[in-house]
Amino acid sequence: MQYETHSRSIFKTVSWRVLATIITTSLVFIFTRKIEIALFVGGTEAICKMVFYFFHERVWNKLRFGKREIKPFVLWFTGLSGAGKSVLADKIYEYLNRKGLRVERLDGDAVRSVFPKTGFSKEERNNHIKKAGFLASLLEKNGVIVVSSFVSPYKEARDFVRNQCNNFIEVYVSAPVDVCERRDPKGLYKKVRNGEINNFTGIDDPYEVPESADIVVDTAQLSINESLNKVKNCIKKHLN
Amino acid sequence: MQYETHSRSIFKTVSWRVLATIITTSLVFIFTRKIEIALFVGGTEAICKMVFYFFHERVWNKLRFGKREIKPFVLWFTGLSGAGKSVLADKIYEYLNRKGLRVERLDGDAVRSVFPKTGFSKEERNNHIKKAGFLASLLEKNGVIVVSSFVSPYKEARDFVRNQCNNFIEVYVSAPVDVCERRDPKGLYKKVRNGEINNFTGIDDPYEVPESADIVVDTAQLSINESLNKVKNCIKKHLN
Repeated sequence: MQYETHSRSIFKTVSWRVLATIITTSLVFIFTRKIEIALFVGGTEAICKMVFYFFHERVWNKLRFGKREIKPFVLWFTGLSGAGKSVLADKIYEYLNRKGLRVERLDGDAVRSVFPKTGFSKEERNNHIKKAGFLASLLEKNGVIVVSSFVSPYKEARDFVRNQCNNFIEVYVSAPVDVCERRDPKGLYKKVRNGEINNFTGIDDPYEVPESADIVVDTAQLSINESLNKVKNCIKKHLN
Repeated sequence: MQYETHSRSIFKTVSWRVLATIITTSLVFIFTRKIEIALFVGGTEAICKMVFYFFHERVWNKLRFGKREIKPFVLWFTGLSGAGKSVLADKIYEYLNRKGLRVERLDGDAVRSVFPKTGFSKEERNNHIKKAGFLASLLEKNGVIVVSSFVSPYKEARDFVRNQCNNFIEVYVSAPVDVCERRDPKGLYKKVRNGEINNFTGIDDPYEVPESADIVVDTAQLSINESLNKVKNCIKKHLN
């Protein structure tokens, strides 16, 4: 889908010509010791080679040879509310973005805000995760790295997503429920204790701990930066 | 996400050098009339410029300037079952694919086969379409052209998708219901008449005709090729 404009070729032509003409003129002068001949050859060369260089660029622009893309992957953060999924996922997203990579961020809360009627029963949760995973897999298939953060409490849905994707990396953000409740960044645990919310994962709804997560980050033990570095180290091999 | 390999730069270096050395040697010979000087300058130039050219290529490889991508769009085929949505969408998909564009195909039946529990009530249909549209919009945002075919009978869901996308092109594949029933490519109309299927769009469920479709294709009047050409002509301006 990417192509190079004519102005890129023109600027590249000029940039190369300045460099190359200096070299040619110097060489002719060294061999002939005649400044006029050196300038004549340099000048004539500059004009006719610019034309050739430009068309050489345009021809190479059509060739796919040696143009590569990084193989994308789906990085899937799962864990309790308050474990630190979104914080870590946001930072990894920024990190990949800064590298100039094509990357999309999918967040449970953000997707639910587009589809506010999505419920919290086991079936609705699984359906929600499966559809988000299907979305992630299509992005991945089209060359986009996906950084997802969803509570995704059930193994069934997580396995479905793993199967949909080519390169699924499960990151289990582990923190004991009492640590998460103490943090309570969105005040949700408080609401659960006040009886305002039901079916809350970790309290009155189960969280099925991933048995074979690709990366486990214990945010009760590690700082944000340490957690981040652990994830970065694990995905390093996918970025070459 | 795309980058150029070192071997691409090496082959480009050699390809340019062959061309350029012939020019330089000829020029020096024309000005000096001495074949030894021409060959000396040509030879020395060839060696040192190859080195410079290679690094010149690597530096330009880092520059984004003049690298463009075609602005993607979402082509959304809507219409009754049997109107010809999938046939046209498949052919447009192949057409775009052959052009080397990054393009994804979303088909109502295919998505439903991944999520077999999706129902046919108005709410379930709208939800299904909205999620497919959200998916399409994220692909579009990430540089992927999307070719979708969904009955998408309700204006509400189609408008939702239009709002999600940057560049939404609605293609109304219009054919009277009796023509569609005569074609009945999947035998669905027969099942409806036998009472095996309910809530079937066009028979016992409404189809809200698009009032401001970007393209209208009447497949009862036009052949497949004529319909295809109409769509191709309309999307032409998006491909430059």
